[in-house]
Amino acid sequence: MQDKPVFEHRMTVPFQDIDAAGVVFYAHLFRYAHEAYEHFMQHIGCSLRELLAEGSYLLPLVHAEADYHKPLHHADTLTIELWPKTLGRTSFTLGYRVLADDQTQQASLATVHVVLDRTTQRPLPLPASLREGLGAGAPP
Amino acid sequence: MQDKPVFEHRMTVPFQDIDAAGVVFYAHLFRYAHEAYEHFMQHIGCSLRELLAEGSYLLPLVHAEADYHKPLHHADTLTIELWPKTLGRTSFTLGYRVLADDQTQQASLATVHVVLDRTTQRPLPLPASLREGLGAGAPP
Amino acid sequence: MQDKPVFEHRMTVPFQDIDAAGVVFYAHLFRYAHEAYEHFMQHIGCSLRELLAEGSYLLPLVHAEADYHKPLHHADTLTIELWPKTLGRTSFTLGYRVLADDQTQQASLATVHVVLDRTTQRPLPLPASLREGLGAGAPP
Amino acid sequence: MQDKPVFEHRMTVPFQDIDAAGVVFYAHLFRYAHEAYEHFMQHIGCSLRELLAEGSYLLPLVHAEADYHKPLHHADTLTIELWPKTLGRTSFTLGYRVLADDQTQQASLATVHVVLDRTTQRPLPLPASLREGLGAGAPP
Repeated sequence: MQDKPVFEHRMTVPFQDIDAAGVVFYAHLFRYAHEAYEHFMQHIGCSLRELLAEGSYLLPLVHAEADYHKPLHHADTLTIELWPKTLGRTSFTLGYRVLADDQTQQASLATVHVVLDRTTQRPLPLPASLREGLGAGAPP
Repeated sequence: MQDKPVFEHRMTVPFQDIDAAGVVFYAHLFRYAHEAYEHFMQHIGCSLRELLAEGSYLLPLVHAEADYHKPLHHADTLTIELWPKTLGRTSFTLGYRVLADDQTQQASLATVHVVLDRTTQRPLPLPASLREGLGAGAPP
Repeated sequence: MQDKPVFEHRMTVPFQDIDAAGVVFYAHLFRYAHEAYEHFMQHIGCSLRELLAEGSYLLPLVHAEADYHKPLHHADTLTIELWPKTLGRTSFTLGYRVLADDQTQQASLATVHVVLDRTTQRPLPLPASLREGLGAGAPP
Repeated sequence: MQDKPVFEHRMTVPFQDIDAAGVVFYAHLFRYAHEAYEHFMQHIGCSLRELLAEGSYLLPLVHAEADYHKPLHHADTLTIELWPKTLGRTSFTLGYRVLADDQTQQASLATVHVVLDRTTQRPLPLPASLREGLGAGAPP
């Protein structure tokens, strides 16, 4: 799969996300990425709310990482680009780029999710609907 | 009931609780108060974890308020004093004072909790164990 | 001044704002209200970012309160209505209503802000531009 | 350097750190790690508060990562072990292990910090005091 964005989430850095050094606290970037992920999942027809309410599987995170290129500030408007990086048999990896208004890249992140059977808590193959939704951004 | 503290919780303001104005974001004070409340409930033998796991009632908040006297800063060490202000038939009110190291009062808060039957979601009289725990700080 | 909304902010409850009781943690409502306030201030031409960067005054909160009518859940879409409740000489009060999609009122909040001279930290009369912006929703 | 803990931070998972799936939201682990880091820095005589107030350098994070082994729950008591993994010329890496009461490992994290000159914003060699403090846990 190529690393091309398939989804964009826009947001503005709120007043309270600043830390004692005057910039956005690093862990908030994972929160921003997760909000992009929630919107993305909704977009591909796999809303987390429905999954949690009635799904047969869960998608816990097993790994997360971030590289911080530039500090972010209060009221910055950000675009978070999201794309599926890899689809495994029972897991998938999402990539994220955090861009400022002038398109400079502020940070990049990745999260790895596994598909767990809700009852047995064991890994499951990616359900077809999820694989299809995630694969939509991938080249043939 | 007199307004005398029956419980103290000590904490240090973490790096990430600062806002764009360089002081602690006001809503975090409610979080600090709730952490004091969790420790207090444990202290009087009504741990929230056990309540949630096996209790027959819940204690949702129906009101919260705060007065802010002085700004709080990164790494301030705080004492949060907590005491039951009023015990009603189906609800109770807790008061909180947030003190700096030199005992100056930085903020004061109050939270009102109702006792709800977990099944019917209707108000219940305060269970005896809870009434006893809350009343421990009250004068006879 | 009548209590009529002059500004609306729409949002969706994110995955991570839930607490151990399965509903939105009460203190997050103050965060939601503050985000509505930030957008409102921008809307009336008094952006907090500019105030912090170059303003001669600050607007610290001295009081906040909330009444919780119904629990909020993950992925609820909310409308936060905001309106100036009172304009004092050196302070103002904002009111907020949190509405669900079916227009039922989930919570109501109020915040009181004072105008402080940035240098002296003393109360100042409301600057004309701020008074005008806040007054825009008031009847004549 | 060996991967041996040189510092331990104890904490209890608060009520509000749970997500819609009923477990601790993954990004909070970075917050927990940072709180351990703050206490550690104080312990080795490089308090972040003093650094920010009067230091000639800053220590921004440029990378963070986490592996999640088991879900964490409300009221779990955790021990966060912290140790310097590598000391570079102008950066250092900290490792963290999050342990449950029965010593099972719940998560492991790493953060990479660079030393930046506060005025020029350019990388600086690790100051002697910091190198000494970080090196205290390393074998000869």
